[in-house]
Amino acid sequence: MTSLRKETESEAGLAADDLQETWRILTTEDRLEAFLDLPRAEAEDFFLDLSARDQYELISAMPVAQRRSWMRLLPPDDAVDVVQEAEEHAERYELLALLDEQTKNEVTALLAYAEDDAGGLMTPSYARVRPDVSVDEAIAYLRRQGRDRLEHVNYVYVLDADQRLLGIVSFRDLFTAAPSRTVRDIMSADIVSAQEDTDQEALGQLFAQHDLQAIPVVDAEGRMKGIVTVDDIVDVLQEEATEDIQKIGGTEALDAPYLEVTFSEMLKKRVVWLAVLFVGESLTAIAMGRFEDEIAKAVVLTLFIPLIISSGGNSGSQASTLVIRAMALGEVTLSDWWRVVSREIIQGFSMGAILAVLGFLRVVAWQSAFHSYGEHYVRVAIAVSLSVVGVVMFGTMVGSMLPFILKRIGLDPASASAPFVATLVDVTGIVIYFTFASLLLRGVLL
Amino acid sequence: MTSLRKETESEAGLAADDLQETWRILTTEDRLEAFLDLPRAEAEDFFLDLSARDQYELISAMPVAQRRSWMRLLPPDDAVDVVQEAEEHAERYELLALLDEQTKNEVTALLAYAEDDAGGLMTPSYARVRPDVSVDEAIAYLRRQGRDRLEHVNYVYVLDADQRLLGIVSFRDLFTAAPSRTVRDIMSADIVSAQEDTDQEALGQLFAQHDLQAIPVVDAEGRMKGIVTVDDIVDVLQEEATEDIQKIGGTEALDAPYLEVTFSEMLKKRVVWLAVLFVGESLTAIAMGRFEDEIAKAVVLTLFIPLIISSGGNSGSQASTLVIRAMALGEVTLSDWWRVVSREIIQGFSMGAILAVLGFLRVVAWQSAFHSYGEHYVRVAIAVSLSVVGVVMFGTMVGSMLPFILKRIGLDPASASAPFVATLVDVTGIVIYFTFASLLLRGVLL
Repeated sequence: MTSLRKETESEAGLAADDLQETWRILTTEDRLEAFLDLPRAEAEDFFLDLSARDQYELISAMPVAQRRSWMRLLPPDDAVDVVQEAEEHAERYELLALLDEQTKNEVTALLAYAEDDAGGLMTPSYARVRPDVSVDEAIAYLRRQGRDRLEHVNYVYVLDADQRLLGIVSFRDLFTAAPSRTVRDIMSADIVSAQEDTDQEALGQLFAQHDLQAIPVVDAEGRMKGIVTVDDIVDVLQEEATEDIQKIGGTEALDAPYLEVTFSEMLKKRVVWLAVLFVGESLTAIAMGRFEDEIAKAVVLTLFIPLIISSGGNSGSQASTLVIRAMALGEVTLSDWWRVVSREIIQGFSMGAILAVLGFLRVVAWQSAFHSYGEHYVRVAIAVSLSVVGVVMFGTMVGSMLPFILKRIGLDPASASAPFVATLVDVTGIVIYFTFASLLLRGVLL
Repeated sequence: MTSLRKETESEAGLAADDLQETWRILTTEDRLEAFLDLPRAEAEDFFLDLSARDQYELISAMPVAQRRSWMRLLPPDDAVDVVQEAEEHAERYELLALLDEQTKNEVTALLAYAEDDAGGLMTPSYARVRPDVSVDEAIAYLRRQGRDRLEHVNYVYVLDADQRLLGIVSFRDLFTAAPSRTVRDIMSADIVSAQEDTDQEALGQLFAQHDLQAIPVVDAEGRMKGIVTVDDIVDVLQEEATEDIQKIGGTEALDAPYLEVTFSEMLKKRVVWLAVLFVGESLTAIAMGRFEDEIAKAVVLTLFIPLIISSGGNSGSQASTLVIRAMALGEVTLSDWWRVVSREIIQGFSMGAILAVLGFLRVVAWQSAFHSYGEHYVRVAIAVSLSVVGVVMFGTMVGSMLPFILKRIGLDPASASAPFVATLVDVTGIVIYFTFASLLLRGVLL
């Protein structure tokens, strides 16, 4: 990565960089070999930078004797992530056994939380002080608390004897306050905090909204449980967006880097949806079957079928992706559904009208150029135009409603993928088109 | 937001919460009124939590006399964002004029950078020390440096007399080191840093990859220019993902919350793409026109057109979205193009084969049930199956290549939207289908 400048000139530094460059394309075995060749210090920095998935794969690939020291390198919250990468219970147990007693207990406690809740993302290591000590005492105390309590030091959390969170004081304030004032004097009691079960999407919104470096996690009684730090949320936001994008594209979420998914996994995650859509789309054959006579009499009508149904699919996928993202960002909630859908229908009408004009001109122009569409081309043109308006409106309606319906029944709105919406709209599009056509051409062509 | 707990019981705290709850649905005027009703302290916290866009709109709506104190509340990097929200040069100048001399100079310097480069995201406020002072001296010195230099205190940057970045020492290390050691002893010289022109997507990857709280920005000579903090990157990552998702859905990026985009803006951002796709899709009418005789003779063929072309569109949008996201995450680079495309073609063949079996069974089953497809239904079924294989393969190929091509010629890969790919594939799908059909049915139905 060109934007990554390592200042160190040492051989090892370069070796670590090389490994980083080539990591993507190495097998786990090669990764391990190159990794174990690094000097310990370099290897430790490198290891801590890896994703939980990579850390887990390295550790599993190692000789058992070496695993302990690497597991113990991880802070509790990261250790949890690595343990969670293990599928089987027995394997998780082995990994836990590598940790020292205290960390093992902390990790086990964290494992009780769902992976994507605040409880599962938080670390129990944070800086804490009592409210009634002086600024100088607090600073001296924090210096004694030592490394593990100070993983993130932008904020110090003020707790009473029952571990209840009273306030937060930023290091900046602590540092720049008059040494003799008490922590209580300078702390802020206006706290943005999360519950243990706050899900990661909501957490991401809190961080984005308040530009915080860390958010404390408290239980129902307001007792401090840990902190979630923004650097952990960055990965979470990336994952959430990736899942949504992949679902919108009509696949299951890959849950792994594109190039690391095996061929068969990839096939499974894609073909299931494709098959479902294929079966759904085969309804179009039934729909068209019902108009077989019309088609036989007026073949010209069939020429515009793809044009019309695809317009519905396109407008529908626009609507669904806009709504899906707005929901993910918390800009739109379930209660907004009518506001959104009604707006989308009007958008659909306006867009449909514009396309209808294009469609009409297209047919007329072609006719005058090549006389392809027979004497009744004006009626055909009108049928096409009217259908486009109807189909595009229907597309935006379905596309904008579907995410709300999915969310309402507890499914992921992002499953309202472009292909899914398009398939829903295609069938209706055909019915709409041939209905208009038979009305306009009955007794003329039909 | 349920996960947002404000500990304060004061009236004002509640008022601020109410405003936050209703913010989304208020007009700028109502927002300003409610905002100015808050007690100053509450208002300041609230103001600092707002997005740059909202801050800009509030300030522009205020009586001129009140603007100064709010602009001066912002740290330099946030002030830059607010100024950049202003479209006209004159307006930007007015906003700059509200700042004190020093901040104005810092902001003007930052304005010189592109909005989405490291230079445009960085803040010039960071904690700095000389390498040869003792730990105790460093801590004492930092306490004297005061608030503005300590916006983010997780890292202290070690600079030589020429402002060259020698190393980084975490507050944790500084805090827990023996007071008499020198900063040089405990600093890390192994620095992840960015250039002024590193773009925000690459920055986001650096943060996600290294779990850093801040990244220093240096010029070509390694002189320290500022730091980018992870809390600013959270918003950036959100925006980047939102843009990609909206483009994948076949609209231009909205650049604003869904509900805040005016009807006409929204229409403009959507109908342009729809119209382009509509014109492109009208090629299908031409393609089908070339097979009008075949259609007239064998109407049954037309029934499967939507089924076949949509399969290509769906597999294509799967491929393009997977590749687009893999590129955005840096999992796939231009040089991987053949590795990806060849893999996608094989995926396409496998998926096509599975769908082909479904298609064949579908036709045969329907025939035995309703005798809808005439005596030569087996040949029709074969034509459909072969076409599905060809179309799905073609879809995955186009869908996976398009993002590479767009990126190669300097466009955004995310413009390879599902609708765009589908349109490209539809025309070819029709040609493929009718070619197979005429081969198989020539002399029989045709």
